Amino acid sequence: MSSSGKAPVRVALDAMGGDNAPAETVLGAILAAREYGIGVYLVGHEDKIRAELAKHDVAGLDLPIVHTDEIIEMHEHPATAVRRKKNASMTVALQLVRDGKALGAVSAGNSGAMMAASLFTLKRIPGVERPALGGIFPILKGGVSLIIDMGANTDCKPDYLPQFALMGSIYMERIFNIPSPRVGLLANGEEEGKGNQQVIEAHQLLKREAQTLGINFIGNIEGRDIPIGGADVVVCDGFVGNVVLKLSEGLGEALSGMLRTELTSSWKNKIAALMLRPSLRQIFKRIDYAEYGGVPLLGINGAAIVAHGRSNAKAIKNALRVTKQTGETGVVDAIAEGLARLNAEQESSKTK
Amino acid sequence: MSSSGKAPVRVALDAMGGDNAPAETVLGAILAAREYGIGVYLVGHEDKIRAELAKHDVAGLDLPIVHTDEIIEMHEHPATAVRRKKNASMTVALQLVRDGKALGAVSAGNSGAMMAASLFTLKRIPGVERPALGGIFPILKGGVSLIIDMGANTDCKPDYLPQFALMGSIYMERIFNIPSPRVGLLANGEEEGKGNQQVIEAHQLLKREAQTLGINFIGNIEGRDIPIGGADVVVCDGFVGNVVLKLSEGLGEALSGMLRTELTSSWKNKIAALMLRPSLRQIFKRIDYAEYGGVPLLGINGAAIVAHGRSNAKAIKNALRVTKQTGETGVVDAIAEGLARLNAEQESSKTK
Repeated sequence: MSSSGKAPVRVALDAMGGDNAPAETVLGAILAAREYGIGVYLVGHEDKIRAELAKHDVAGLDLPIVHTDEIIEMHEHPATAVRRKKNASMTVALQLVRDGKALGAVSAGNSGAMMAASLFTLKRIPGVERPALGGIFPILKGGVSLIIDMGANTDCKPDYLPQFALMGSIYMERIFNIPSPRVGLLANGEEEGKGNQQVIEAHQLLKREAQTLGINFIGNIEGRDIPIGGADVVVCDGFVGNVVLKLSEGLGEALSGMLRTELTSSWKNKIAALMLRPSLRQIFKRIDYAEYGGVPLLGINGAAIVAHGRSNAKAIKNALRVTKQTGETGVVDAIAEGLARLNAEQESSKTK
Repeated sequence: MSSSGKAPVRVALDAMGGDNAPAETVLGAILAAREYGIGVYLVGHEDKIRAELAKHDVAGLDLPIVHTDEIIEMHEHPATAVRRKKNASMTVALQLVRDGKALGAVSAGNSGAMMAASLFTLKRIPGVERPALGGIFPILKGGVSLIIDMGANTDCKPDYLPQFALMGSIYMERIFNIPSPRVGLLANGEEEGKGNQQVIEAHQLLKREAQTLGINFIGNIEGRDIPIGGADVVVCDGFVGNVVLKLSEGLGEALSGMLRTELTSSWKNKIAALMLRPSLRQIFKRIDYAEYGGVPLLGINGAAIVAHGRSNAKAIKNALRVTKQTGETGVVDAIAEGLARLNAEQESSKTK
């Protein structure tokens, strides 16, 4: 491990997490080290990781192994598993962040466990009610939106939502370079009074707190606005966010499956498909989750990224890049500052 | 109006409702009369309707006009408008149902007002907690699912959901000829314990009441299951249902827009598009809402169908067909019977 007094420039990877670990996780780390010059702690079973490293040319790459033989499996109950397996690979990766040795941690393993382990190891940012997962939603015409929460909190109180708005806004600004991201509250109509009780109350809080939080709240947006990029940050509870993301994934898969069937259903169609290949490839690239790497666990006192369980090496590579950016651009500090401002204002209005 | 003693064979159309009324509504009625032999009460401004009828050959068609000059506009507040305009065209259409003169009523006007007017004029089926709108979700590989509720009730108690399940199930069985429709509860995971508090409780109720209600409850489904037809009836609250349907519409539009852009972006692509035209037309036909006509307002004591505000003549024609079917196949009675069985069982278990 680095013995210099400088800030760490490595990120920590749960090399054992995900359906394709450790082959694709280790390869992803190699690609990140090679393409972006990122140092990666490979956390997991030393022999298995070494066997994967041996398959590639890793000369000159900064890929230290941190050995542990405990792994949290996909089917395990998150909180129980984290409590019992103190040296699980994802937990050890997070400990490297806690101890200042890594800028952030990534796991493609059990996402519930990654949340539990992050909370347990890194704790919440002071003032955060509930950490949330920000899901990346690719916009067809280019760019992405962030859906927050995408599933960490199925039941939300209205005052969680302005916090989601703040966290998502800072993330989109710093990681996707969107100045003053437009924050939309997902509702069943654009008018201010639309929504369920939770959303109607959250709307009022967002309006009142937007300035203090430093967010660009544009009001309610509807489901139809999401795919056309009607907001950069889409705020909703985790139940709705989960439905939105899974429905979109399912629709994308159903459509591309149907297109594939049609494009191979006759010789005429096969020829047309060949002619269209470059255009279609462009579209599919835009909606490929692997391009965006992973989704941030926001509100945790450290950079923690959850990668897709089916991550391939490219997804891991991109997740490592995003993790490094999240650590370097001070996302955590900016969230803490926003919440401190809100807290100060609420205190001062109480004492008035 | 019919003076025979037979049951009415006409349906009532709010000829003034919708963005394209009365031109497209009247034409839709003409098409329904011609193609399906349906008699249609054209409810609205007599002169305006007569002017539209005069543009077409309507010899031998059963299209009586019921005059009223009150119209509820799209922007009006539903409940207020219904209360103030006692002779609004949609209300008069519903009165024809109430008075046994029409099998059912359709409006493409203000959908909130149509709900309010239906409740006011036809009342609820005894035992129904909340009437709900069933949204038609076209499955790409063929067929449709019903999303219930799609927006009438943004805040739901868990015990509304088994009622939605019953109503949707009967509708899909009788109107879309699906024997024993699969009823899925929309959640953020397939396991029984997944969901927000409302969904977790609704799951237990559905399990317990499925047999009495006579529904085929298959458990939780996820967002990704909807587009592949994972359930014939998707049960959720109206907030979530609204997001699901609008998001899907938006995604469909964004994808077809993008496809259109790509297919015209070069000569090579234009030629390929020409070759693919029959296949693409097939896909777009399947997701064209006009094919499915309208969405049912279920739980109302009579057949009431809400057509899309942008309905063209084809959509109105199909909505009139669906309305007639809804009236003829006894959807309302079947719902009443299912609820009566549930009520009887709940009473008997209380007295035990």
